[in-house]
Amino acid sequence: MAKKQKSFRPKARVPKGLRDRRARDVRTEREVLVRVQRLYELYGFEPLATSAFEYADALGKFLPDAERPNEGVFSFQDDDEQWLSLRYDLTAPLARFVAENYDGLSKPFRRYAAGPVWRNEKPGPGRYREFTQIDADTVGTPLMAADAEMIMLAADCMEAIGLERGDYVIRFNNRKVLDGVLETIGVDTGAGDVQRLTILRAIDKLDRLGVEGVRLLLGKGRKDESGDFTEGANLANAQIDSLIAFVEAGAGSDEETLAALRGLVGDSAVGLEGIAELSGIQKLLEAAGYDETRARLDPSLVRGLGYYTGPVYEADLTFEIKNDEGQIVRFGSVGGGGRYDGLVERFKGTQVPATGFSVGVSRLVAALEAKGQLAASTSRTPVVVLALDGERIADSQKMVQELRDAGLAAEMYLGGAGMRAQMKYADKRGAPIAVIEGEDERAKGEVTLKDLVLGAKLSQDIEDNKAWREDQPAQIAVKRGQLVAEVRKMLARHEPAMGARHE
Amino acid sequence: MAKKQKSFRPKARVPKGLRDRRARDVRTEREVLVRVQRLYELYGFEPLATSAFEYADALGKFLPDAERPNEGVFSFQDDDEQWLSLRYDLTAPLARFVAENYDGLSKPFRRYAAGPVWRNEKPGPGRYREFTQIDADTVGTPLMAADAEMIMLAADCMEAIGLERGDYVIRFNNRKVLDGVLETIGVDTGAGDVQRLTILRAIDKLDRLGVEGVRLLLGKGRKDESGDFTEGANLANAQIDSLIAFVEAGAGSDEETLAALRGLVGDSAVGLEGIAELSGIQKLLEAAGYDETRARLDPSLVRGLGYYTGPVYEADLTFEIKNDEGQIVRFGSVGGGGRYDGLVERFKGTQVPATGFSVGVSRLVAALEAKGQLAASTSRTPVVVLALDGERIADSQKMVQELRDAGLAAEMYLGGAGMRAQMKYADKRGAPIAVIEGEDERAKGEVTLKDLVLGAKLSQDIEDNKAWREDQPAQIAVKRGQLVAEVRKMLARHEPAMGARHE
Repeated sequence: MAKKQKSFRPKARVPKGLRDRRARDVRTEREVLVRVQRLYELYGFEPLATSAFEYADALGKFLPDAERPNEGVFSFQDDDEQWLSLRYDLTAPLARFVAENYDGLSKPFRRYAAGPVWRNEKPGPGRYREFTQIDADTVGTPLMAADAEMIMLAADCMEAIGLERGDYVIRFNNRKVLDGVLETIGVDTGAGDVQRLTILRAIDKLDRLGVEGVRLLLGKGRKDESGDFTEGANLANAQIDSLIAFVEAGAGSDEETLAALRGLVGDSAVGLEGIAELSGIQKLLEAAGYDETRARLDPSLVRGLGYYTGPVYEADLTFEIKNDEGQIVRFGSVGGGGRYDGLVERFKGTQVPATGFSVGVSRLVAALEAKGQLAASTSRTPVVVLALDGERIADSQKMVQELRDAGLAAEMYLGGAGMRAQMKYADKRGAPIAVIEGEDERAKGEVTLKDLVLGAKLSQDIEDNKAWREDQPAQIAVKRGQLVAEVRKMLARHEPAMGARHE
Repeated sequence: MAKKQKSFRPKARVPKGLRDRRARDVRTEREVLVRVQRLYELYGFEPLATSAFEYADALGKFLPDAERPNEGVFSFQDDDEQWLSLRYDLTAPLARFVAENYDGLSKPFRRYAAGPVWRNEKPGPGRYREFTQIDADTVGTPLMAADAEMIMLAADCMEAIGLERGDYVIRFNNRKVLDGVLETIGVDTGAGDVQRLTILRAIDKLDRLGVEGVRLLLGKGRKDESGDFTEGANLANAQIDSLIAFVEAGAGSDEETLAALRGLVGDSAVGLEGIAELSGIQKLLEAAGYDETRARLDPSLVRGLGYYTGPVYEADLTFEIKNDEGQIVRFGSVGGGGRYDGLVERFKGTQVPATGFSVGVSRLVAALEAKGQLAASTSRTPVVVLALDGERIADSQKMVQELRDAGLAAEMYLGGAGMRAQMKYADKRGAPIAVIEGEDERAKGEVTLKDLVLGAKLSQDIEDNKAWREDQPAQIAVKRGQLVAEVRKMLARHEPAMGARHE
């Protein structure tokens, strides 16, 4: 062989804020995607896939991180000097697609999309820079029926992935109502106004900082535990009181909340429009049987993204889990969305009203794993056929092939090690069965099946019932011709599904 | 509402070399992935997902584009100045993962992975800068049984996605044999040697340029139709003759090919090692019943990527299609792979032998669509419920809900238009049925179902059998309470599967 020159040796490390996902996570995510997809198709949404990156100007700057508007995305330059950015959500690329293909689309255009998105943010515990979303959107309708449908879809979604009623709630609100309140207290609500964005972001932090924290952010500003100071919206106390009253208006039933909001928006036209929209949504939800345990109006909901123009909604998981610091917390948001009537207009100049819902799949996977759900149904490991004799490797291969042809996951041990190491491999691999054809067995036309699941149980429980042990021995010799049937029988001992065909 | 300032209006356009994929393409790709995944799991590979980008030094420079080694990937700098690159395949990230987690993995480590990869190459017809791969790899074994398994997997893969035997062939070869031939003709085969790479790439172009083109590239160089000159490997005529003899040695049976190769490598140790490996693979394939119509030795196969160290293999589709210029051509490669014993070593310093196979899913989808396969089984469109009366939208919503609860894809028309436009929408959408509840129907407790599939047929065929038309009218009134049952019956007229539950 050729000589190798001594060369640079890179350090193997996963990039900052990214992660590798092993079998269990991948399978759970896949199961979530399959179930949500099925639901979206049932609702009549069609799949569409856009690419991972877009021209930077097409994506726009709508991320909630006001401090680093340019750094929220990953960007690079093409060889023709144009800037490209990795998508930070699936909505902005949809707006580009609709604007580009507008005339050829049937309107309303209903599509769903799934895939990774990337955010160039400071990573933290449970906060990654790549995560998976699956979205459904209806583009080209101003009707509140479309928003109500999104809220129903969000609720159905939570149940489709196996959550119980009561484990989640879809909260909804309308940005126009907040704009109405701002109008009555004398704050400019012009699009892109910095003070309005600061107020939105302050309210968005209610869950994390509580009412007192939000009060500070609406006023002079707030210093956090680390000593960092966040500049506030500099509102007067009376203004702050009105906003807090707005935020806290959702304690009662939706009817009561609507009444309270009517008192807060005064004569503001946009505020009244928002309330009429909320009332329309609420009526449709009620008629369709989605009661307030599943979907309810919550004025404190604002959502972080800058492009929402009307109704917004969020799917929250209400059960409690331990967070990374060992504290018991409610799991919180696993998805959300809203109406974005201006996003296609950015390209076309004319308004194309649209609304959509996005599931944060990676968050949902974490929630399901915290609850111990979905995992069992998605894990399978192969039967391992030992390869003890290098000269007879084709015989082992033949057995593997027979098992696979019967729909049973199987593999031949492909390393160079001996019997003990091969058994250790099968164990570590979580294989349910090891198949052994040594010289003695071959002479008798037999193979040995070792039940590794039972073996593990027996070694845990020495006091085990002897009769049962004899009845179901952990190791049996079977006729070579009966390999598939006997493996199937052994798999069925533990889990009926394991002996079934792979789907 | 707030005033909008007149602002920059970006042009909506998909970036160069990328594309949007509509429902049919997305569904076909999903079906391919599901089938290949199922096969990989049957073989005992476990899923692993790594992120879209890696530190640039971890990916290394193994792309076939010698002229633009740095430009083959998309790269950007993190805020800590480190360079990140979008992955160009799924193998280099696997090598990084294995090196990073080596001690905790059971060896051999068998994983599969699926996802998009990106190449910063000049786009062309059918050549995109983002495409989907699904790979299976076995890491930690030097045994040829692992390579033989990859070849079997490749063949099974083609059949799993619905291709007939004879529509594909898996070709395999071994880079060591080429190195042996190079040794006998006096060419340095050191790793990374520029002349060797130029020779590899010349041979890799055999399909496209024919023997004469390859001769030029092995010699002084070649000018293409556009006048661009590609520098050659500058070999002497006798050397070129030997290489062409090598490339053309695969005309007969595998046994004959092996005999011819033995004559070409002389006493070269590496060449003889390569032949022994090929012979080992060939014996295992034969014993497992994979005959030469499914997998055969082909010395002209080299594969483009720089990291292969031994056996290489490629899945080729043998049927003919029309290319973009209207010429009849063989479809060609839809996947490939090989052994890369040095890729993990780059990080660890010690050799970790590995081999793997990658399916080019996007290419395969194009092939299946060219053949008209898989599409039918994956397309479904929803029943459209018209919404004729804004006041009664909750009634339409109720019907949609009943259909969905019964597992039938359905949607309510959500635009603002009248009856005619709603019917046009349902048609354009490809809906099988439109459900109409007008005032008259409501008074009688009925709804009208319009069979749009039959309607389209009838309007095509005016001479249609009148009796049959009366027997299966395109439009019927049914009791509101019978909605689901009647929709199901109408769907079943055309395709039994359409009436079945969504899966």
